[in-house]
Amino acid sequence: MNKFRFLTAGESHGKCLTAIIEGVPAGFEIKEDFINSELKRRQGGYGRGGRMKIESDTVEITSGIRFGKTLGSPITLVIQNKDYENWQKIMSTDPKDFTEEKAFSKFRPGHADFAGSVKYNQIDLRNILERSSARKTAIEVAVGALAKQILEQFNIKCDSRIIQIGQGKTEEEFKKEIDKAKEAGDTLGGKFEIVYKNLPIGLGSFVHWDRMLDGKIAQAVMSIPAVKSVSIGNEFAYCMFGSEFHDQMYLENGKVTRKTNNAGGLEGGMTNGEPLVVTAVMKPIPTLRKPLNTVDKSIMQESKAHFERSDTCAVEACMVVAENRIACILADEFLMKFGGDSLTEIKNRV
Amino acid sequence: MNKFRFLTAGESHGKCLTAIIEGVPAGFEIKEDFINSELKRRQGGYGRGGRMKIESDTVEITSGIRFGKTLGSPITLVIQNKDYENWQKIMSTDPKDFTEEKAFSKFRPGHADFAGSVKYNQIDLRNILERSSARKTAIEVAVGALAKQILEQFNIKCDSRIIQIGQGKTEEEFKKEIDKAKEAGDTLGGKFEIVYKNLPIGLGSFVHWDRMLDGKIAQAVMSIPAVKSVSIGNEFAYCMFGSEFHDQMYLENGKVTRKTNNAGGLEGGMTNGEPLVVTAVMKPIPTLRKPLNTVDKSIMQESKAHFERSDTCAVEACMVVAENRIACILADEFLMKFGGDSLTEIKNRV
Amino acid sequence: MNKFRFLTAGESHGKCLTAIIEGVPAGFEIKEDFINSELKRRQGGYGRGGRMKIESDTVEITSGIRFGKTLGSPITLVIQNKDYENWQKIMSTDPKDFTEEKAFSKFRPGHADFAGSVKYNQIDLRNILERSSARKTAIEVAVGALAKQILEQFNIKCDSRIIQIGQGKTEEEFKKEIDKAKEAGDTLGGKFEIVYKNLPIGLGSFVHWDRMLDGKIAQAVMSIPAVKSVSIGNEFAYCMFGSEFHDQMYLENGKVTRKTNNAGGLEGGMTNGEPLVVTAVMKPIPTLRKPLNTVDKSIMQESKAHFERSDTCAVEACMVVAENRIACILADEFLMKFGGDSLTEIKNRV
Amino acid sequence: MNKFRFLTAGESHGKCLTAIIEGVPAGFEIKEDFINSELKRRQGGYGRGGRMKIESDTVEITSGIRFGKTLGSPITLVIQNKDYENWQKIMSTDPKDFTEEKAFSKFRPGHADFAGSVKYNQIDLRNILERSSARKTAIEVAVGALAKQILEQFNIKCDSRIIQIGQGKTEEEFKKEIDKAKEAGDTLGGKFEIVYKNLPIGLGSFVHWDRMLDGKIAQAVMSIPAVKSVSIGNEFAYCMFGSEFHDQMYLENGKVTRKTNNAGGLEGGMTNGEPLVVTAVMKPIPTLRKPLNTVDKSIMQESKAHFERSDTCAVEACMVVAENRIACILADEFLMKFGGDSLTEIKNRV
Repeated sequence: MNKFRFLTAGESHGKCLTAIIEGVPAGFEIKEDFINSELKRRQGGYGRGGRMKIESDTVEITSGIRFGKTLGSPITLVIQNKDYENWQKIMSTDPKDFTEEKAFSKFRPGHADFAGSVKYNQIDLRNILERSSARKTAIEVAVGALAKQILEQFNIKCDSRIIQIGQGKTEEEFKKEIDKAKEAGDTLGGKFEIVYKNLPIGLGSFVHWDRMLDGKIAQAVMSIPAVKSVSIGNEFAYCMFGSEFHDQMYLENGKVTRKTNNAGGLEGGMTNGEPLVVTAVMKPIPTLRKPLNTVDKSIMQESKAHFERSDTCAVEACMVVAENRIACILADEFLMKFGGDSLTEIKNRV
Repeated sequence: MNKFRFLTAGESHGKCLTAIIEGVPAGFEIKEDFINSELKRRQGGYGRGGRMKIESDTVEITSGIRFGKTLGSPITLVIQNKDYENWQKIMSTDPKDFTEEKAFSKFRPGHADFAGSVKYNQIDLRNILERSSARKTAIEVAVGALAKQILEQFNIKCDSRIIQIGQGKTEEEFKKEIDKAKEAGDTLGGKFEIVYKNLPIGLGSFVHWDRMLDGKIAQAVMSIPAVKSVSIGNEFAYCMFGSEFHDQMYLENGKVTRKTNNAGGLEGGMTNGEPLVVTAVMKPIPTLRKPLNTVDKSIMQESKAHFERSDTCAVEACMVVAENRIACILADEFLMKFGGDSLTEIKNRV
Repeated sequence: MNKFRFLTAGESHGKCLTAIIEGVPAGFEIKEDFINSELKRRQGGYGRGGRMKIESDTVEITSGIRFGKTLGSPITLVIQNKDYENWQKIMSTDPKDFTEEKAFSKFRPGHADFAGSVKYNQIDLRNILERSSARKTAIEVAVGALAKQILEQFNIKCDSRIIQIGQGKTEEEFKKEIDKAKEAGDTLGGKFEIVYKNLPIGLGSFVHWDRMLDGKIAQAVMSIPAVKSVSIGNEFAYCMFGSEFHDQMYLENGKVTRKTNNAGGLEGGMTNGEPLVVTAVMKPIPTLRKPLNTVDKSIMQESKAHFERSDTCAVEACMVVAENRIACILADEFLMKFGGDSLTEIKNRV
Repeated sequence: MNKFRFLTAGESHGKCLTAIIEGVPAGFEIKEDFINSELKRRQGGYGRGGRMKIESDTVEITSGIRFGKTLGSPITLVIQNKDYENWQKIMSTDPKDFTEEKAFSKFRPGHADFAGSVKYNQIDLRNILERSSARKTAIEVAVGALAKQILEQFNIKCDSRIIQIGQGKTEEEFKKEIDKAKEAGDTLGGKFEIVYKNLPIGLGSFVHWDRMLDGKIAQAVMSIPAVKSVSIGNEFAYCMFGSEFHDQMYLENGKVTRKTNNAGGLEGGMTNGEPLVVTAVMKPIPTLRKPLNTVDKSIMQESKAHFERSDTCAVEACMVVAENRIACILADEFLMKFGGDSLTEIKNRV
């Protein structure tokens, strides 16, 4: 990412989550309300546990925007952690506050605990959990919700839907599956689809592997905690003939059209004027009430995994995160293609 | 990619393909023979057409290596195009050689032709085809074959296998499917799996989205022309319970072990000591002998797509490319984790 | 910058300045007190105006550090703007608060006002001033003060001194020059020198232009507002013979030594074991009480430049900023050379 | 550098120098002749030694350009080393060719030899010399000569002149100084100035330190081997009053004008419409016929430095390199500001 670049920070129970976004041109209207509505969507969905109620995330903008419009300077977004007061000592930066309260040593399979404790040389696994937690996706959604508002200026829109949860394939079945899992102290993942419409032709490029838009989108989605698979277009490509799969072209009123979109809107790593279609698979949440077998690092004995308050299913949240991650990639590509330092200048070029 | 960074260049029928790799420490033994054997693997597989015989790619190293060892300076790899003499005029850099021979204007669905011609403002679609061609993956394999030799020094090894081609699920069936497609002037894609073993624990990181190793691998594989889906670990995650999916941990001789590897060797965006397992789906090749409906750009009329010499199935080639792309990512992560400017220095640290 | 990467944000009269630093390994002790002492140094020096007293910057760490040590996760630093309450409406993010209070339209020569208003399409020059102000160097100092603490762990230390202010070449003369300028409503720049000692041999590299350490340092220092010249080593190189300039080598107790350091500690873009010596020139502060001729953008007429509370001389502040900017570059190079994810791991390698 | 990115490779006596440039939009006319004329300028100047006659560099373009115009794909530039046949065995990539012919172990002060041999763990200092040699600037000039042709399309032009060599301040004196040094087996550096005209207002930015154009230029110039000092605008800023230094603004025919250009065309890290003026200092060449005291690494005894064929003075060459390095930075900024994938598209925006 070259123009729309950003860093995020923040621990799950730390004081706040923060993001700085650098490279947004001047003059874009940014609405906190929209960011907050995306944050709310991320917290929703059937199958969420207790924390979601505590949180009710809202964003504060502390730089880069004046009187509702971007200045061209870096934008800071902050989401306060609502229950920080209960964690203030436990998450303190001050060495004098050192405590082993809430420390734990029983690896949770499927989480960063094991590899993280080896990598960062940590005994207390909380030092891994705090940043590896999916909590950090809240601030990523905030960043993406800003990117979406950039895209919105050019009428680029996003839709999404859950395709499957467990064995369920309809909304009614989703709930049943989740109820079943919840009762069993178990968890579920699922599959979802995201569609972006009205993208200009020619975002991305085939000229170098790291400019292929499909690759960038795959990275953005696969790097969401718990995503294990990403597809662009028809994921059954592997068992179709070329003559079935490829989206033939026709002329309609002097414009190239297609009757299918198996390519999912990308050919040669570029948008081709058709809707961009991305599907992804989320694994079941790895923190289970019915705990998994594991090893206790402190005593090096077999044990049951640490349990931290958790959800049964978060596919909807994951889908919202993916939408917003993709928005960041698209905003970057868009800004690179059109250049320009202000909305006015860009609008003249589009 | 921070330490193992590279650029590649070259048109399909241009004089040569070139890569420059910057950031390899000094003292690594690099064997041209191994690079050539990977290039040969890329050219093989059942279902390849005529060009593969012409080519027989071999690499030449023109910088960065002396007496068989890396110097620490940028390494240049060159693959000459064997039939360049037949294309010398057509692909000339000289404006005086301008010709419309081999020019074409009928978009090939599934290729970069349409979006590319819009993006780069080209009338002759050869100006798009030449770089968007899968030919460029040859030099990417050469770069990856160098990365593999870096990994090999630390006993990191790669395996791979084709899982499915068309409807076929065994080698025998693969051939039948390909024969059937070939006869029909059609093409096929497929699905394959790549496994890397002996990776140290803790490559990648959860601390920031763009350091997650799963995301980087997804980008590297999805940016290969024709790849439409990438999965890490068990791709059926979406319909399993958490208690089934997550790889429980046990102690064996004082070491953490697992009985399953549904995570595919990555937890929290980091290698966890288990084999890294990546699967990917390749779409059917978009250049068909039995041509698809399309539009002729020059006359803006419906037409049949341009046909350029092509293969029926290139899943094996795609798999070789993916292996080598992943090697680049892993070499980069490895060199970042251990730092060091010479092999000796790194060996002392591993 | 590859490992120690960061973004900063914040307007001069906005709510706060923020930085996120990504890539610091786990286990480093970070002291807020040290960061605050560097912030204080930046606010000091003879010739500073009123604002410095208002500010008295202090840093708050809101992520990435627990019980005094880095976690390996991104670190957030925040400096509140002390007089924000007086600017809350003027710098509001809310469009309903729109006001022209404190707006201005008279370009200040030497500032970003003119080019910035063209680039970002702004009428109110406050929209340029707020980010182009040297105020933002406060948070850069905080980032650098963190980098210094990383270097400190390996006994790498920094010294600095002012060489010249106006015509003055001693501390006593500095004050006289400044008093003279102040009285005249004028401003002064100067020249300073920074020395880093105990750097390991071989930071940076000659193998590619963008890995040359001298280039990276030059960028870091030249990008400080008001710096117009950067030198490494003896800046009179241009009028010396090679036999005078180059630092000959001798053996002393089996170790290579030198009697001179005209190279300033860098040969071939790498540290060579001698102290790193950087000098830089700061131009006079461009906001003058005795205002310069300029143009009023709103009425397009000649005018006198806008005056915003300012200092007479800030060479000492600039020197502190430069020290800390260089620390960021050196920390990055150090972490790249040694790799590693925790202090323990790195200490084993150094 | 975001759009105009490149890697270079090649040893001083290797087969060839190579560069790959990625990110140039389609449709730019590129003339090999112009690149060759810049290569010739780099080889000229009073005080050059014998090698320059051997070389007579010419570029070959092997990708990215067809019929004289850029395709949008990566561009490969190659400069063959003319006397490679004499070095073929000595610089062979094949371990079977191993030889100690032309190996050396006596550090040359002022060169990369000492730090390089420590960093890359090399005994034969040729393994350092070959890449640290200024020979690599030939291919950098070729890259810059391509960048200059991009800028030329928008009427952006470059001038330069030598200011000082040794004590000499006029062309006549330059020659005398060089003759004197040559006779003494000594070497000389000097000072030069580069001016770019007709740059659009607003290249670069103040919003983040790494987007300041002055910083980027400083890096590009300071990373040229032998450059020790870089200034932008009037380098005597440190001893002037603000009222003297800053370039006051006036109105002339409704346009903002200035009578001075002490800022050197950059305010707030951005081009301000005035000519960009950069001065730099080159140190004396470190390879002397009258050799310096040093240490012999192989026997760890004091010795006289290795002598490799060399020049007396190469300030003119260095100036040509600097011009072309700066061109790369400016082309990148220009392409970022205007975006666009083809010359036609960009021309519509400028």
